[in-house]
Amino acid sequence: MFKKVLVANRGEIAVRIIRTLKEMGIQSVAVYSTADKDSLHVKLADEKIAIGGPRAKDSYLNMKNILSAALLTGAEAIHPGYGFLAENELFVEMVEAVGLKWVGPSPQVIELMGNKANARESMRQAGVPVIPGSDGFIKSRDDARAVAARIGYPLLIKAAAGGGGKGMRFVYNEKELFDKFSDAQNEAKASFGDDHMYIEKVMTNVRHIEMQIMRDQFGQTVYFPERNCSLQRNNQKVLEESPAIGVTEDMRRQLGEIATKAANAINYENTGTFEFLQDSDGHFYFMEMNTRIQVEHPVTEMVTGLDLIRMQIEVAAGEHLPLTQADVQLNGYAMEVRLTAEIPERNFAPSAGEINFLFLPTGGPGIRIDTALYSGDRVQPFYDSMIAKLLVHSATRQQVIVKMQRVLDELVVYGVQTSADFQAALLRDPQVGRGDFDTRYLEESFLPRWQKTQPLTELGGGDGFIQ
Amino acid sequence: MFKKVLVANRGEIAVRIIRTLKEMGIQSVAVYSTADKDSLHVKLADEKIAIGGPRAKDSYLNMKNILSAALLTGAEAIHPGYGFLAENELFVEMVEAVGLKWVGPSPQVIELMGNKANARESMRQAGVPVIPGSDGFIKSRDDARAVAARIGYPLLIKAAAGGGGKGMRFVYNEKELFDKFSDAQNEAKASFGDDHMYIEKVMTNVRHIEMQIMRDQFGQTVYFPERNCSLQRNNQKVLEESPAIGVTEDMRRQLGEIATKAANAINYENTGTFEFLQDSDGHFYFMEMNTRIQVEHPVTEMVTGLDLIRMQIEVAAGEHLPLTQADVQLNGYAMEVRLTAEIPERNFAPSAGEINFLFLPTGGPGIRIDTALYSGDRVQPFYDSMIAKLLVHSATRQQVIVKMQRVLDELVVYGVQTSADFQAALLRDPQVGRGDFDTRYLEESFLPRWQKTQPLTELGGGDGFIQ
Repeated sequence: MFKKVLVANRGEIAVRIIRTLKEMGIQSVAVYSTADKDSLHVKLADEKIAIGGPRAKDSYLNMKNILSAALLTGAEAIHPGYGFLAENELFVEMVEAVGLKWVGPSPQVIELMGNKANARESMRQAGVPVIPGSDGFIKSRDDARAVAARIGYPLLIKAAAGGGGKGMRFVYNEKELFDKFSDAQNEAKASFGDDHMYIEKVMTNVRHIEMQIMRDQFGQTVYFPERNCSLQRNNQKVLEESPAIGVTEDMRRQLGEIATKAANAINYENTGTFEFLQDSDGHFYFMEMNTRIQVEHPVTEMVTGLDLIRMQIEVAAGEHLPLTQADVQLNGYAMEVRLTAEIPERNFAPSAGEINFLFLPTGGPGIRIDTALYSGDRVQPFYDSMIAKLLVHSATRQQVIVKMQRVLDELVVYGVQTSADFQAALLRDPQVGRGDFDTRYLEESFLPRWQKTQPLTELGGGDGFIQ
Repeated sequence: MFKKVLVANRGEIAVRIIRTLKEMGIQSVAVYSTADKDSLHVKLADEKIAIGGPRAKDSYLNMKNILSAALLTGAEAIHPGYGFLAENELFVEMVEAVGLKWVGPSPQVIELMGNKANARESMRQAGVPVIPGSDGFIKSRDDARAVAARIGYPLLIKAAAGGGGKGMRFVYNEKELFDKFSDAQNEAKASFGDDHMYIEKVMTNVRHIEMQIMRDQFGQTVYFPERNCSLQRNNQKVLEESPAIGVTEDMRRQLGEIATKAANAINYENTGTFEFLQDSDGHFYFMEMNTRIQVEHPVTEMVTGLDLIRMQIEVAAGEHLPLTQADVQLNGYAMEVRLTAEIPERNFAPSAGEINFLFLPTGGPGIRIDTALYSGDRVQPFYDSMIAKLLVHSATRQQVIVKMQRVLDELVVYGVQTSADFQAALLRDPQVGRGDFDTRYLEESFLPRWQKTQPLTELGGGDGFIQ
């Protein structure tokens, strides 16, 4: 097993990883930006190295400085968490080039799954159902028209090397296809130096269902119960749960076997998540793969009783998976709410500042709050606005919702505005209560209704504590 | 189901109960002493009623005021928690006389099990193995000598109505028996107005193993996995765990069946715990019964995934048990450490004051902290010194110990001294690590050794956070 691991991240996920390292008897190295010198991950780690200025590009994306920190401290491995460099194959190559272990898959696999068109094609070849669309790349308007004739409208033109919406166009008919294809291709060329395009059908009334797997260096794979992450805003997940209402035990096994087959096909190592769309007939279509631990992994930990970060580290160190598929048991229901430092009433404008008072309602059965916050800490304006993951586990989905409402109700964060009130309202929504929502529900149905109920003068945040 | 329940307690257990009431959609009524007006249980309850001055006898033991509060607010039931009036049959009679429900057993059963000699006798008649000793009461020195001749020395003379060590004597030989019996009997008469005595053999090299049951009004009983609570100081539990090392599945079922039989014999209702001594041959001997929820119930909740407070309320409301024995599953290991506001280095002198800063390390899998503390709160000198229950759950006992050490290490409580360092040392002890300790180990072996290592100038408490 490793003696020392560097955690190339900040915030709750860095804290999460450092705690598991401690429990495994492994020394931890924190890296931090100058803005984060008093952050919890820095306080908890055995060693800490400053790696640059507040902006991510100067610190948490600063490959050279992170690598230097690893070499300087004698770390044997790097755990990237999620975000920042977690899916940067160039960085992984550098890590491996200097003889360090990466807690994650190979750079080749990261690159393959990072190119959405290649990922789609490799999955299709592995027999995984993909969203109807082009087979491989599309180079011209005529190719595009032929695919459209086969799959129908509406559809999405996408850049193979894409990301952040660049080179992407919604297309509702042949006329629009004709008008927009070259535009999109030119934008892709300009943005990524790559004009390979592909096409996917726009699927409506679908749910985001994902399946996480763990695969060791000996080719053994286990899959975990699926998560439903359909409640999203701006392509960001707002609430995740497991198991998914409407996914039967048969469907779970079927999806798990698809994910296992896919992981085997690309010789995947460590943990990863296959994201699918599920249509109203219950069919699944591969969307993309995350080649890292995800924000919402604790939902799965709560329904299975496992420590997935520990398992990541064990597998990265060359150990066998500590369990078989039969050992993965699903117990009850779990849900995560991503608490953000934002003002939902003002179109989710970010909110930063010092936390003057913090009350985390952590007592009683089935509650877990993963956060790097503490009283006196500062929420920085430079990074992701997520400040805590509120997690609840209980015997039934209804009990989970009620418990989460209580947690949101009791929670107090003074110093920044939070998303708590917005999320409490979301949990009171009858459709959310029934589990009856697709990927567009939050943004297109719930949010406009909710916004109408919000007086402009009132700000959010759970502030019922001090009367 | 009840619409409103009064919680006749304070601190973490009042908070614990109020939270479950909220999750059940039941209105909660907090009662509080003037010292507790800013306490968390008061802030969280739907209604709050002041019931008297800071001293327990003026408030939390003030039966008339608590009853008035219940009638005034229209509460339908009273949940006593543990301590205070939880095992006071007179109060339960008053509660029932005014038409309210008691979340607990009948006053007759509380009285029966409260008289240690009667409890012993009723258990013996139900076929439960009891500690060797007298059958029924002893009235004279000659009776005592006859029992001693049968069971041997050392033995304990005890007052049937006893408590707090009054009327109790250790006896090592016949001469001492002769000298001390009348003394003890006179003390019992003076203390309790009752000179009924009984005798029990002093058992050495034994462990405290307890078995909690839940029984509904229809006579259905379930038992839960046993807890080992052998680590005690001054007859107070310091650390509890489940399952117990050395209790096999067969022994667990056997003990559970004994407890079930005993509960049936006395027509027990609601939850209760049978406390046993286990000798080095693995035999169990009934010691006493707690006719209420116990401090350490969350240990059981963690290994079973159940909410025992919810179940108490359901059963008190006349519902059937929501599960059968087969539904009670044991998963992994759990442990509780009782964090107290005390100075172990100064013979556990109490410590009170304002909590200036509080950091509860609650993130990651398998951690639960039940507490009424918050930053800015005061630890009062009037009540029990326990300020938080630190709970950990994991797949193996070794992992549980390591995780608990991490929690104790991360925890920060400024403003009072705590038992954290002492308990961290206890967890580092090799015998504790192996689970190899009896009921005297902490007090007679560990504590004297630990005290020698403590410089008098140094005070306890986890204070590594702010550097």
